Amino acid sequence: MKFSDLHTVTIVGLGLLGGSTGMALCRSCPGVKRVGYSHREVTRGRAQALGLVDEIYDNLPEAVSGSQLVVLASPIGTFEALMQEMAPHLAAGCVVTDVGSTKVLPVRWARRYLPKQVEFLGSHPMAGSEQRGVEFARADLLDGAQCILTPTAATKGGTIKFIKTFWRQLGMRVCQMTPAKHDRVLAQISHLPHVLASALVNCSDAEQMLLCGRGFLDTTRIASGPPGVWRDILMANADNTDAAIGRLIKELTRMQKILQKKDAKATLNFFSKAQAKRNDLVARKLKRKELPG
Amino acid sequence: MKFSDLHTVTIVGLGLLGGSTGMALCRSCPGVKRVGYSHREVTRGRAQALGLVDEIYDNLPEAVSGSQLVVLASPIGTFEALMQEMAPHLAAGCVVTDVGSTKVLPVRWARRYLPKQVEFLGSHPMAGSEQRGVEFARADLLDGAQCILTPTAATKGGTIKFIKTFWRQLGMRVCQMTPAKHDRVLAQISHLPHVLASALVNCSDAEQMLLCGRGFLDTTRIASGPPGVWRDILMANADNTDAAIGRLIKELTRMQKILQKKDAKATLNFFSKAQAKRNDLVARKLKRKELPG
Repeated sequence: MKFSDLHTVTIVGLGLLGGSTGMALCRSCPGVKRVGYSHREVTRGRAQALGLVDEIYDNLPEAVSGSQLVVLASPIGTFEALMQEMAPHLAAGCVVTDVGSTKVLPVRWARRYLPKQVEFLGSHPMAGSEQRGVEFARADLLDGAQCILTPTAATKGGTIKFIKTFWRQLGMRVCQMTPAKHDRVLAQISHLPHVLASALVNCSDAEQMLLCGRGFLDTTRIASGPPGVWRDILMANADNTDAAIGRLIKELTRMQKILQKKDAKATLNFFSKAQAKRNDLVARKLKRKELPG
Repeated sequence: MKFSDLHTVTIVGLGLLGGSTGMALCRSCPGVKRVGYSHREVTRGRAQALGLVDEIYDNLPEAVSGSQLVVLASPIGTFEALMQEMAPHLAAGCVVTDVGSTKVLPVRWARRYLPKQVEFLGSHPMAGSEQRGVEFARADLLDGAQCILTPTAATKGGTIKFIKTFWRQLGMRVCQMTPAKHDRVLAQISHLPHVLASALVNCSDAEQMLLCGRGFLDTTRIASGPPGVWRDILMANADNTDAAIGRLIKELTRMQKILQKKDAKATLNFFSKAQAKRNDLVARKLKRKELPG
């Protein structure tokens, strides 16, 4: 399917990402009809009030049946059941994508449950915050953020092009890698930070924490994220996250030995390396306009 | 000395904290003469241009000789030499404090080097950022932030009251604890977060990091802090930081075992506990007006 032929998109799940996708779609592709699905009445009411979609259903088959593109934007723990339920109702030629934080399992489920005449391509729009829910949706949430596509050897070139165009239209930068590589990389740059922010809070005393400054608050910000969502992500990427925690423990243990030897030079090297790498990261993100200047 | 008798303060070192202290002092206590010392010509020039102090010296004995209160605001690694140099030039009854991030060593150095007729009381104003230097000084940097005083059994009640009033005048909340307890608490809520932010950057691949979202950037923000300053802090608090890293590794190892067992319930508990504790921390800080509402 050509992107210019797109006239109907269904967004399944209208939380922060689903809602923001609806808003961005309205802004960037005003001719495209946006259909929404949510099983929660309060979410449907808010989505309607905020104009996130043009039509809204509490019935999945109805929501997807006339659609050319279905975007799964609910928590990853719901994907398997949703794919099974929607499979018989998808039109031939329909493309399905998702916004899940891990990609190996969604790709596996799609292969298992979706019909042959439907193409699946996993997406991971890396935008969000520790806030959750439709009330935090913003038309600019996706702007300038990275979206990782995870085609497999079986994905058609036209489908990659179509989904790439879709996210680019919504303001995102798009890159691609295999589902397996995606999950390894995300374990390191997303799932590990979440575990360690939470571990830092868990091993700190509540009264002592109260004395903390901005550094502690920033380092632990993501620990305020929704536990159920993160449980599902970790369960879907347990082995890679386990390995990433292992790498961090190795680096922390190295620092413990430096401290036990009171090695000032090695301590300076430890911090200098981190400072240089992070400053370089920020500089490159600024140059790519992924951060406000 | 009563606070109302204070007419001259010397700030030794005019970086972010020293400069901001000068600005806040001008705003809150306009009758008090502010004397500054910096060994760097460029810093003296900027401090003068920004009006951080009323008089500025490149000579420490001259800067401290007429002063009733000396605030050491240079990196902790410089304190020992500065105390030795200033000791013979301090007026009888002068009070010396500091803004160092650890307290056991400054207290020990003060006992060793400062004359008997001078009182020392350690302070730790917990304000700052990963930015460094006089150009980032702000009159409101200290507002609403916590300052920890670390009296010992030998500290006179009048000195505690005097220094407490000083920081409160500058807008800070003041609490007190022993130097040993301060260093244990700070290892957990400040020095450990710095180590782990740096360790996370160090164990991540530069190209993979480029794909990161805001979560990774926030979690690692403090890794951009000045390596030399943090080397000095860690060297002054090596044993406590070593123990704090040990506590974090224990919690991370617990999570690894949960992941190896794919234990969804324990994963949820891990994140739920962290979320509840951090949300409670933020709520209490908001209530105390330590965070913008």
